[in-house]
Amino acid sequence: MEVDEPVRLPRLPRVAVCGGTHGNELSGVYLVRELLKDLREKDAEDGGPLSVLVVLSNPRATQQCRRYIDVDLNRCFSHATLNGPVPDASPYEIILSRKLNALLGPKGGQGAVDLVCDLHNTTANMGLCFIAYSDSDWICLHIFKHLQRQMPDMPMRFIHYDVSKKESYSLDSVGKHGFALEIGPQPHGVVRSTNYTAMKVGVQHVLDWVRHFNSGSVFEGGFVDVFTMVKKIDYPRDSQTHNITAAVHPHLQDRDFCLLRPEDPLFQTFSGEALTYKGSEPLYPFFINECAYYEKGVALSLARKRRVAVPPIRAQTEEDKQASFASEEEE
Amino acid sequence: MEVDEPVRLPRLPRVAVCGGTHGNELSGVYLVRELLKDLREKDAEDGGPLSVLVVLSNPRATQQCRRYIDVDLNRCFSHATLNGPVPDASPYEIILSRKLNALLGPKGGQGAVDLVCDLHNTTANMGLCFIAYSDSDWICLHIFKHLQRQMPDMPMRFIHYDVSKKESYSLDSVGKHGFALEIGPQPHGVVRSTNYTAMKVGVQHVLDWVRHFNSGSVFEGGFVDVFTMVKKIDYPRDSQTHNITAAVHPHLQDRDFCLLRPEDPLFQTFSGEALTYKGSEPLYPFFINECAYYEKGVALSLARKRRVAVPPIRAQTEEDKQASFASEEEE
Repeated sequence: MEVDEPVRLPRLPRVAVCGGTHGNELSGVYLVRELLKDLREKDAEDGGPLSVLVVLSNPRATQQCRRYIDVDLNRCFSHATLNGPVPDASPYEIILSRKLNALLGPKGGQGAVDLVCDLHNTTANMGLCFIAYSDSDWICLHIFKHLQRQMPDMPMRFIHYDVSKKESYSLDSVGKHGFALEIGPQPHGVVRSTNYTAMKVGVQHVLDWVRHFNSGSVFEGGFVDVFTMVKKIDYPRDSQTHNITAAVHPHLQDRDFCLLRPEDPLFQTFSGEALTYKGSEPLYPFFINECAYYEKGVALSLARKRRVAVPPIRAQTEEDKQASFASEEEE
Repeated sequence: MEVDEPVRLPRLPRVAVCGGTHGNELSGVYLVRELLKDLREKDAEDGGPLSVLVVLSNPRATQQCRRYIDVDLNRCFSHATLNGPVPDASPYEIILSRKLNALLGPKGGQGAVDLVCDLHNTTANMGLCFIAYSDSDWICLHIFKHLQRQMPDMPMRFIHYDVSKKESYSLDSVGKHGFALEIGPQPHGVVRSTNYTAMKVGVQHVLDWVRHFNSGSVFEGGFVDVFTMVKKIDYPRDSQTHNITAAVHPHLQDRDFCLLRPEDPLFQTFSGEALTYKGSEPLYPFFINECAYYEKGVALSLARKRRVAVPPIRAQTEEDKQASFASEEEE
């Protein structure tokens, strides 16, 4: 294969767009409701070669405008959780995760949808982020490149959690490809029009890219900066009450993806003292002061940045598939 | 009485500082915890002429980081609610409001604390606000003037809800004087260091002012811009599902206290259409897109601005009280 010959990848005939996986992250909730309305209206005229499944993932949490009812749904899709025992008094989201796995999966199986795009918000100043479990899923990286080009005014990053497919725990891991599309800052339980519009435009570009890919377009290669999560830092806490004793330092607050260097200020205690970053390696902070992570013991996450070379790609044709099948036969 | 003769008002020996009335408004929660720690540490040395009662108002909601458990505590202090029947299965906050009324009140009674300062946060871009039920409570207006002078970099407004003492429903209405001290923007469930510090400094200035007042200082008169709430506007909603169908328009979002004129954009629907303000009078919007008010049917509130002349004041002396008593006797 020559250097510039596109990598040939299977088409993506079935895509799922999910919102309300966290019931108080409202951009996705209202976008999914709007898409469902559109789909109902367009069902008759526009079957098309692309099947788009639109899902409000956690209806009960959405109805109550809470992140979850019993447990965080977006931590329920690991192999172990999906295949563990289900006692009668199971948490609501454990039952729900199996229903969603039946609808969109089964995770790891041939019947799974080709791409899951799961919509989220954060209170952190993160702009638009893709969050994925692979730094070499060319589909996700090409979609990201496409959005970067189409939405040049939107700060945009690709975050990589280095977790195996089996251990990956979020809803987007159920698809053959998948990512969370995260937009912030926005308080949970609030919808801000600019974030809603950015998410709507972003999802439209995702679907446009998939249609072009499926129709046989060639996408040229390039580079993507990938932020790989290295570690998480908790708030300072009182050893007895476990209450936090400091807030994120004003110099760090809202500076997601700005390099944090050793001895930079990290926290300011409630009595007024500054605490600094004691790590030895400069790293990129993100999810700084995310509301939902107080209970998870995470004040911020830290990432290493790396430039990833993305090859040109195009969809496999019928001939490619037969050739590939024949070559497998020959082996 | 001559024009510049200070109005003489009773001293304020007992002040209450309350936080966690809404359990997910974290500036007040952490400030009250810090003040309680300070008080414990200073109890022995500093009795002083000012008694400061520090109260975490809704411990159960605070523990769960929710606004409330059953009903909004800060709507439970009207005369009717405080004096209505209490069935066995009463909402948690109904019981709690009576306990707080016993501690800080009784509302309207001689035994009530002299001043209640109740700490709140909002997701709206409101800076620091006093919210009170009177536009002629010289104590509250003088304290506000003091904070304006002491914190010149902080946007600061005085909001007036024109509701009678009897119908007033919030915790601060239990004191002889009282106001909510509201700081935003901040997502509920999040503490931002700059807001925490502003609230800490603000409360310190409130207490300093009361100490000076009690010690007999004369405070010169002046003017305060008072924003009197005129009406509330709900989000556009679907008539069947009651779901909102639009977000606050990007041109209005974060522009609290910037004059809204007839035909200015108000909302942007989820399908992209702009809706304008149909009122005939230019008014000042506030609590724009406050998270907790979605369920109350309030997208924003509108106020009329008026400049109020505040007279000079000083604390009554023993002679004043005897003179006042004697003159009442004579009548």
